[in-house]
Amino acid sequence: MALIVQKYGGTSVGDLDRIANVARKVAARCDEGNKLVVVLSAMSGETDRLLDMARSVHELPDERELDVLVSTGEQVTVALLAITLGSMGYSARSYLGWQMPLTTDSGHGSARITELDGASIKADLDEGRIVIVAGFQGIDPHGNITTLGRGGSDTSAVAVAAALGADLCEIFTDVDGVYTTDPRITNRARKLDRIGHEEMLEMASSGAKVLHIRAVGFAMNHGVPLVVRSTFDETEGTLVTHEEANMEGEVVSAVACNTNEAKVTLTGLKDQPGVAAQVFSLLADANVVVDMIVQNISDRGATDITFTVAESDLLKAMEIGQRIKDTVGAEAVLGDPDIAKVSIIGAGMRSYSGVAAKMFFTLAQESINIQMISTSEIKISCVIQKKYSELAVRALHDAFGLHKESWHGG
Amino acid sequence: MALIVQKYGGTSVGDLDRIANVARKVAARCDEGNKLVVVLSAMSGETDRLLDMARSVHELPDERELDVLVSTGEQVTVALLAITLGSMGYSARSYLGWQMPLTTDSGHGSARITELDGASIKADLDEGRIVIVAGFQGIDPHGNITTLGRGGSDTSAVAVAAALGADLCEIFTDVDGVYTTDPRITNRARKLDRIGHEEMLEMASSGAKVLHIRAVGFAMNHGVPLVVRSTFDETEGTLVTHEEANMEGEVVSAVACNTNEAKVTLTGLKDQPGVAAQVFSLLADANVVVDMIVQNISDRGATDITFTVAESDLLKAMEIGQRIKDTVGAEAVLGDPDIAKVSIIGAGMRSYSGVAAKMFFTLAQESINIQMISTSEIKISCVIQKKYSELAVRALHDAFGLHKESWHGG
Repeated sequence: MALIVQKYGGTSVGDLDRIANVARKVAARCDEGNKLVVVLSAMSGETDRLLDMARSVHELPDERELDVLVSTGEQVTVALLAITLGSMGYSARSYLGWQMPLTTDSGHGSARITELDGASIKADLDEGRIVIVAGFQGIDPHGNITTLGRGGSDTSAVAVAAALGADLCEIFTDVDGVYTTDPRITNRARKLDRIGHEEMLEMASSGAKVLHIRAVGFAMNHGVPLVVRSTFDETEGTLVTHEEANMEGEVVSAVACNTNEAKVTLTGLKDQPGVAAQVFSLLADANVVVDMIVQNISDRGATDITFTVAESDLLKAMEIGQRIKDTVGAEAVLGDPDIAKVSIIGAGMRSYSGVAAKMFFTLAQESINIQMISTSEIKISCVIQKKYSELAVRALHDAFGLHKESWHGG
Repeated sequence: MALIVQKYGGTSVGDLDRIANVARKVAARCDEGNKLVVVLSAMSGETDRLLDMARSVHELPDERELDVLVSTGEQVTVALLAITLGSMGYSARSYLGWQMPLTTDSGHGSARITELDGASIKADLDEGRIVIVAGFQGIDPHGNITTLGRGGSDTSAVAVAAALGADLCEIFTDVDGVYTTDPRITNRARKLDRIGHEEMLEMASSGAKVLHIRAVGFAMNHGVPLVVRSTFDETEGTLVTHEEANMEGEVVSAVACNTNEAKVTLTGLKDQPGVAAQVFSLLADANVVVDMIVQNISDRGATDITFTVAESDLLKAMEIGQRIKDTVGAEAVLGDPDIAKVSIIGAGMRSYSGVAAKMFFTLAQESINIQMISTSEIKISCVIQKKYSELAVRALHDAFGLHKESWHGG
């Protein structure tokens, strides 16, 4: 008998028929003798419908009240699933964020989990109940409802799994696992059987949308074994787990692509200490999240700084650039939304050399110019012109042989 | 500076425009220097939409989960009103049932209030905030969400007013006050400026739908002054208050009519002790609420018992009658859904005689046969054939001169 946490996303609970489908899947796992905790999102579209209502009233709605509003989405689905399971003869009980409680800080709209008390859930499981948990929501120390931000239900599921010491956390979604790259870009994309937590983390931060980045980080820190699989078929899915030595033998596990970033360049900056600090502290104050940063020192006593931000933050970042242009002695502030960040990810990079060279060579062969380069221990990212993004993904996917079961370098 | 509790029903918050209208009314009262607590229902139709979803899944949904589901309706409106007031520059904070907390028993779907802690609300009011309270919902001692039953938001409002010692509780609805009778039946119906708590209670139990019966009882027991008025115009409304000596001087204040009852008769019962007890304890066990009961003793050693129940309970009551027919020695069990209960209500009846006679005489003049009679201290009810109900209401309204400012008997 295992303790399993399952999470179903918005499309999986999009209407009453789909909720009935989820109930059947939960019941089947229960019949196998497992203890089940099910974490749900709101019906697909519901969170946006509620947000649209609030924003039609006020451009910047009070964040506390926004959380009161949007948290109703999951409240509806958990009650409906519990009622559906009841109609099938199973005893089920729903938990809202404040009922567990899942305690967070007071960062309304993107709160961080500080504590989760699993005692009541455990008691219900011991009495033979199926427990249904409203994802995405928590309660702050002052008794206010909070929400965890987009994709937060994944994080709720992992947190519940960690608190209960679950044997497995299954993330059910509308894709059947984690792929070597986006299958819409190349039909040679291959589903992975396993992937390491760190690789998954790099993939999430590189544009792969299959798992919420904070959920992956939480799973990694708490050693929660995750499976990503489809609600709509019985395929095995992908196990996200501790990286084992030479897992699957791959050097490169996946190619990711993010086309939602934009590039800002400050040219001819004074080449002296403190200039970069001034620029990026102003961006941070304006809540602009910066991804890649590249600085080149020229020989004329001046330097260029280029950084990438979310495309939706480009105007804000440009304004800040203009504002401090004179202070930092910049010649010009240039913005470019026409970029893509292509990344290759693989835990095996740690022990193989020549991976970066192979990436740059592959792009060069396709006549794709590299504008920026950034590397981590297990990832290499290149910024290129947006129109080449699919070509680059296909070329890299082929070059590293990701359509084959494993690639051992070379 | 007064502390005012306002309650707005479902049609008053039916869409974003109407919520904006409520916000303007609240703001105006606030600008006059008052402290405001606003209790809201769900958008009109929303509770039914949620109930329909649940019932399409399961005929008898789990009651705990049903309360989790339907309580989202008020959660949406309180957040939207708080956001709307925020957009107008007012500081507002919403409270759900569990956040106050408003404690109830565990009677899901029709829970009774056991305690209300107004400390947090008071603190918010003292800091200059407008407080918005989700009506209809509470929390039981085990931390489960409960709801108070249909019309429960009225009760929430009165409970909040009582807990805070409010100067006034205003019930905003889609009618502009309490009338001498249903204005749809006679255009001679007149709005009352004042009515006593007890009279209002008898009216509510006699079929007048303007106020929830439990809210009136609560207001009476806690001495909360209530005003019933329209959300959609500035008319003064009706003050429901402690009965004062000869208030407005009327003997009869209103005529009410309930066409949703049915009549059951057991004929030829053994005329011996315990027979009635057997019948009504079985009905109580089956949760059939009995309204009027009339028993006539005949001279042939047998008796007839007639009682009224909600029309929706008629079949259940008939079945029970059939089941114990032999035990209690009844000749027949007769059911009749074709009835109406017409009532005249007035605190002044206590000190005037001849009121009942005048009622019976008025009905006789219209050739309306009286099937059952039941009286309380301040009410006389007659069961008649349903088709005569409007005629009876108009005749009684005229006979007691209710279209005129006051009627002093005679």
